[in-house]
Amino acid sequence: MTIQLKDLGNAVLKTEYAVRGPIVARAQELERDGREIIYCNIGNPQSLEQKPLTYIRQVLALCQYPALIEQAPQLFPADVLATAKAVLKGSKHGLGAYSDSKGIRFIREAVASFIHERDGIPTDPEMIWLTDGASKGVQTALRLLISGPNDGVMIPIPQYPLYSATLALYEGRQVGYYLDEAHDWKLSEALLQQSLREATNAGIKVKGLCVLNPGNPTGSVLDRANIEMLLGFAKEHHLAILADEVYQENVYRDGDSFVSLAKVLVESGEKDVSLFSFHSCSKGFLGECGQRGGYMEIRNVPADVFTQVTKLQSVSLCSNVTGQVATYCMVRPPKPGEASHELYVRERDTVLNNLKERAKLLVEGLNRIPGIQCVPVAGSMYAFPRITLPPGRTDGEYCMALLEQTGICVVPGTGFGQRAGTAHFRTTILPPTEKIRAVVERIAAFHVAFK
Amino acid sequence: MTIQLKDLGNAVLKTEYAVRGPIVARAQELERDGREIIYCNIGNPQSLEQKPLTYIRQVLALCQYPALIEQAPQLFPADVLATAKAVLKGSKHGLGAYSDSKGIRFIREAVASFIHERDGIPTDPEMIWLTDGASKGVQTALRLLISGPNDGVMIPIPQYPLYSATLALYEGRQVGYYLDEAHDWKLSEALLQQSLREATNAGIKVKGLCVLNPGNPTGSVLDRANIEMLLGFAKEHHLAILADEVYQENVYRDGDSFVSLAKVLVESGEKDVSLFSFHSCSKGFLGECGQRGGYMEIRNVPADVFTQVTKLQSVSLCSNVTGQVATYCMVRPPKPGEASHELYVRERDTVLNNLKERAKLLVEGLNRIPGIQCVPVAGSMYAFPRITLPPGRTDGEYCMALLEQTGICVVPGTGFGQRAGTAHFRTTILPPTEKIRAVVERIAAFHVAFK
Repeated sequence: MTIQLKDLGNAVLKTEYAVRGPIVARAQELERDGREIIYCNIGNPQSLEQKPLTYIRQVLALCQYPALIEQAPQLFPADVLATAKAVLKGSKHGLGAYSDSKGIRFIREAVASFIHERDGIPTDPEMIWLTDGASKGVQTALRLLISGPNDGVMIPIPQYPLYSATLALYEGRQVGYYLDEAHDWKLSEALLQQSLREATNAGIKVKGLCVLNPGNPTGSVLDRANIEMLLGFAKEHHLAILADEVYQENVYRDGDSFVSLAKVLVESGEKDVSLFSFHSCSKGFLGECGQRGGYMEIRNVPADVFTQVTKLQSVSLCSNVTGQVATYCMVRPPKPGEASHELYVRERDTVLNNLKERAKLLVEGLNRIPGIQCVPVAGSMYAFPRITLPPGRTDGEYCMALLEQTGICVVPGTGFGQRAGTAHFRTTILPPTEKIRAVVERIAAFHVAFK
Repeated sequence: MTIQLKDLGNAVLKTEYAVRGPIVARAQELERDGREIIYCNIGNPQSLEQKPLTYIRQVLALCQYPALIEQAPQLFPADVLATAKAVLKGSKHGLGAYSDSKGIRFIREAVASFIHERDGIPTDPEMIWLTDGASKGVQTALRLLISGPNDGVMIPIPQYPLYSATLALYEGRQVGYYLDEAHDWKLSEALLQQSLREATNAGIKVKGLCVLNPGNPTGSVLDRANIEMLLGFAKEHHLAILADEVYQENVYRDGDSFVSLAKVLVESGEKDVSLFSFHSCSKGFLGECGQRGGYMEIRNVPADVFTQVTKLQSVSLCSNVTGQVATYCMVRPPKPGEASHELYVRERDTVLNNLKERAKLLVEGLNRIPGIQCVPVAGSMYAFPRITLPPGRTDGEYCMALLEQTGICVVPGTGFGQRAGTAHFRTTILPPTEKIRAVVERIAAFHVAFK
């Protein structure tokens, strides 16, 4: 007899990943049948007409096929040629060999310099691991923290389902803490305390806390005071922090700015809180999701533990080397005066200005619809509007009906978690501006008519 | 207080991955101090002077930077230009967007055609999942099979440590079955029976069986009769089969040829044995380890189970898209008459002829050393010679001393598993031919003197 569904364990069966769930499957069916679908379900910019930056693609092409450096130097700016040569030399064996388990040292050094320049804090390349996107780093950190069935990790509600899915797969306990929708989805110490107290009373050993800044799906950007509060809380309760900072370049609202957990940690002199932070080439203005590049940075972890991190990475040999080079391009962009700089800045600013405009359009439009309230999108690539539903209807039904009637594909709030009695959906801000206008108009008409 | 080693679970602590263990770490230290090291520890061809094939790198460069198709068509053969265009069109959004969780459908169709042409059996693209190397596919299949602490999977002894490491990480039970060193490391039904009986008596629920063909670290190639025996055994005992076939292009010995599990399964009409088989761009003659391309093919699994496979893949979004395109190039090489064909064949044959020559040189050389016996390398990239040690010494000590005295880095047999009372090491056949000669000479001198 073949494998049957009943042979699979709960760890697998209970894992849920809403961003690619049944509504998306239905959208793909409709699309195959000829319907036009506006995909607002996933932060996948290049599937929505965002163009890759020329600099990164030129470097990657030369690294894949280095003969071009000799054959056609006239086709490439001088700094691109120099960067490709430096990467090839730094990698020792190019893109086709496994790198060290942690990733190419030359690239980890560039990541360390990037963090040092961004935050003004000392950073050790040996505490950087290059990963396939941020996802694989998050999975490794959670794997370390969950050592038994009563171990738990605090995750925000709402959260990005990578966290809940990975905890389910490792059979750890999800300890949800509410974000404060009334205050721009910021962290609330009272809500953190409440969540931890309830978990501890339920016999859960809480070992870590995940924070997403800028927030997914919330679009919030944490200020320094909020991060300092979080750090104090983690120290008091002996929690490691997992800081998902993949949207650090995506801050749109005037007055907000990205502050890294690492900066606050180091500047406060805190040595007792372990920190795992994550970054990726998939978001920001690069939007290079398919390259699967990213890194994990670890602070305040003893050497015998970080040896275990490297060992876990080594089982899959290394992250993909093209993604490692994409990460290099992210942390080492063209500098003023270099040949690519002007084009790079123009392309970057076009992407960021578009996102800023769309975030504003979308939120203002949604807030004009009676029965929809949306916290401003200060950062990231998402809005998470709250919707008033007719009695007895669910957000899942709402989103499926929205898809069927309008072709707009969004994800129900239940996929991210929300307070009982509330309903939301997540939409990206990524579609081209004219489509964002269409999204708002169609949602308005749909919402009013939804019974 | 920060995370401490004692906070980590057994699942993490017990995971071992010898191919990148302490001997390799020591080799890297010695190299930093200026010693010349010959790395024979890992199947990483391009780190040992093997050149990438021009065709695959040209296609990847064009897909990364499609502007080159217009800017410099004269630099690329017509079929390379056509292939890059076809891939870009088939991918819909190029290399920078997440693909479907299973991988780009266009590429999965090409994989299905490849299997159909190789084996003459019908193959459904929906039963193909594109993965980051073969490793991630193996991890997914094992994740499905291990649903509780008494679930076990049979793995060969000796085995490639991906299997033992992954089972340790998922807290499943490793059920070792011996390969028969006296008969070219082939499978023995008696040894399979014995292993299963002992496991069942120990309360283990055995759910699957892993087979590596061609073998790693053994260098064996299974014949059809051996595979038919395995299939009958799996059917009788309700075991799923995991077939690691990443070395299918690496068959060197006259008279041997690769026979896939899928071919034997389908031709026998067997519907009751679930099969997971794995392939990769990292081995064969491409040796594109760093690209992390590969696929998993599943047969005889009900639809509700394969939905779970897709869900597991979706948590990490998708495998890296460059690796997916590398997989496309592997399964869709230039055809006779196409512009790239001649160069492709020449480059392919150079790699394979070199490996064949080195396999022969290495094994013949090792077998001339008194106290070393090596089964012929019929396939894969490894030899696994048996060594006679002085009383009280271990293979770990032997390999460390070999490294310190000669600069040759091999992996002790304990990392792969071996019969109690025997000792081996694994060496690759990858170093350039003149270095293989040096390896043999230095091992001979070392072995005789080792006390």
